[in-house]
Amino acid sequence: MIQASVSQPVAAGEGAHVLQSQNRAEPSSQRRPAGARERGELTRDRLLEAAEEVFAEQGFFRASIAEITRRAGVAQGTFYLYFPAKEEIFRELVRKMSHDLRRTLQEAVAPIIDRRDAERVGLETFLKFVLERRNLYTVMRECEFVDPELHRWYYRRLAEGYVRGLRQAMARGQVRQLDPEALAYFLMGAAQMIGMRWTFWENTLPPREVIETVVSVILHGIDPAGLPREPRATPGTSEGHSPGAPDADPPAAPGADAPGPEPEAGPRA
Amino acid sequence: MIQASVSQPVAAGEGAHVLQSQNRAEPSSQRRPAGARERGELTRDRLLEAAEEVFAEQGFFRASIAEITRRAGVAQGTFYLYFPAKEEIFRELVRKMSHDLRRTLQEAVAPIIDRRDAERVGLETFLKFVLERRNLYTVMRECEFVDPELHRWYYRRLAEGYVRGLRQAMARGQVRQLDPEALAYFLMGAAQMIGMRWTFWENTLPPREVIETVVSVILHGIDPAGLPREPRATPGTSEGHSPGAPDADPPAAPGADAPGPEPEAGPRA
Repeated sequence: MIQASVSQPVAAGEGAHVLQSQNRAEPSSQRRPAGARERGELTRDRLLEAAEEVFAEQGFFRASIAEITRRAGVAQGTFYLYFPAKEEIFRELVRKMSHDLRRTLQEAVAPIIDRRDAERVGLETFLKFVLERRNLYTVMRECEFVDPELHRWYYRRLAEGYVRGLRQAMARGQVRQLDPEALAYFLMGAAQMIGMRWTFWENTLPPREVIETVVSVILHGIDPAGLPREPRATPGTSEGHSPGAPDADPPAAPGADAPGPEPEAGPRA
Repeated sequence: MIQASVSQPVAAGEGAHVLQSQNRAEPSSQRRPAGARERGELTRDRLLEAAEEVFAEQGFFRASIAEITRRAGVAQGTFYLYFPAKEEIFRELVRKMSHDLRRTLQEAVAPIIDRRDAERVGLETFLKFVLERRNLYTVMRECEFVDPELHRWYYRRLAEGYVRGLRQAMARGQVRQLDPEALAYFLMGAAQMIGMRWTFWENTLPPREVIETVVSVILHGIDPAGLPREPRATPGTSEGHSPGAPDADPPAAPGADAPGPEPEAGPRA
């Protein structure tokens, strides 16, 4: 997953125009010949990696641009060729994390036909992502205080794909009729807290019984058959007799949890 | 709920010994005669209220002691009679929020016999708490970056009472046999995300359909009857035939979600 995002770097937000318009050569320790543009991208990636480390260790407010450029191995002035301020490299990291997480979830659940299987795979994929990307997890959470609007964008963007997948599953009778946005935030919150309690605090995936409990509660919670006093929804016909039936999305993209890896420029672009 | 916590102020953490040992008179605008001890508590409460506002508006790292004392209407030096540093008044606010929330939940669910009713009431009580105490919600979340250990303590303490209530409900057959800690964090995460999305972002309680979706998924998810392929647990006898049956807590305290309002000194006491 990480490889994918490295080979196709996320299109830049506000920082990108600085790179494209100025595109200056800067001190570089690269050995192989490279065009100024390519060197620029490498330097930008190095700055982002260094910033991710420094923000995670020291927090946004304590972190300094001097420390970021020191770890990236570039002169302090080079920073400003890519990012106008500490806030902007922080925002770019949040956008990158959002993109990487949604792409990772999409790749994991796209081949899955049944939403109920997708819920388990989605949870496990999210927890693995948190384990591999602990730093970015911290960065994203601090975002609430650095840029509240971007923090909301992060959750709204994640919820959009979730809502789409749930609506499709409701239309197919795999999930009973519920408010899809409420259900999406409910499930996101559950996954995030489990990720915090086990993956983030203990730096390990949760024990099997924790995963089984969470998956079991979700599957029973959303299962049309779990409603003994209500008629069981028949797959493919549930739209007809349930209140609030959602738009029937084309079934061509089952379980698509996240939009594709399109370029992103954040909520203000 | 808030009145209750005002009339019985939370026992102090590390800050308290400063008050008790020094207990000096300080400038006060109180008109009625009061002992030095009582004036001290009033001043301490004023400082806490001012700090809550300033932290919520400016964030911990930008907030200054000068601004806190200005809003509390006391001289800047007075601050140090009660709290050794900005970090300490912040920690005291987090402990106070933890205490107030657990007490509020306990008072709401204590009279409820059936855990399934307690889940709905607990969720609604939590959301009302967030609406009334928006500032403290922000403060508690920033705690992850100010004092990670205290942040964990906050969730562990909340989970403890939740686990106790769930174990009792499992023993009574109201909730099927699941990992109680996993279930507690799952439910806490779901409530927190719903609180963020509606109550915190939009400064209002969620619409009825959101509450109904969340409660419905929880109740179906935990209901022993929602498991058509497993024997239904009979109330009062479920401990005998279920794997992992928890300690049978005495049924004298049904639905007790939170420990009582005992003095607290935080995770380091």
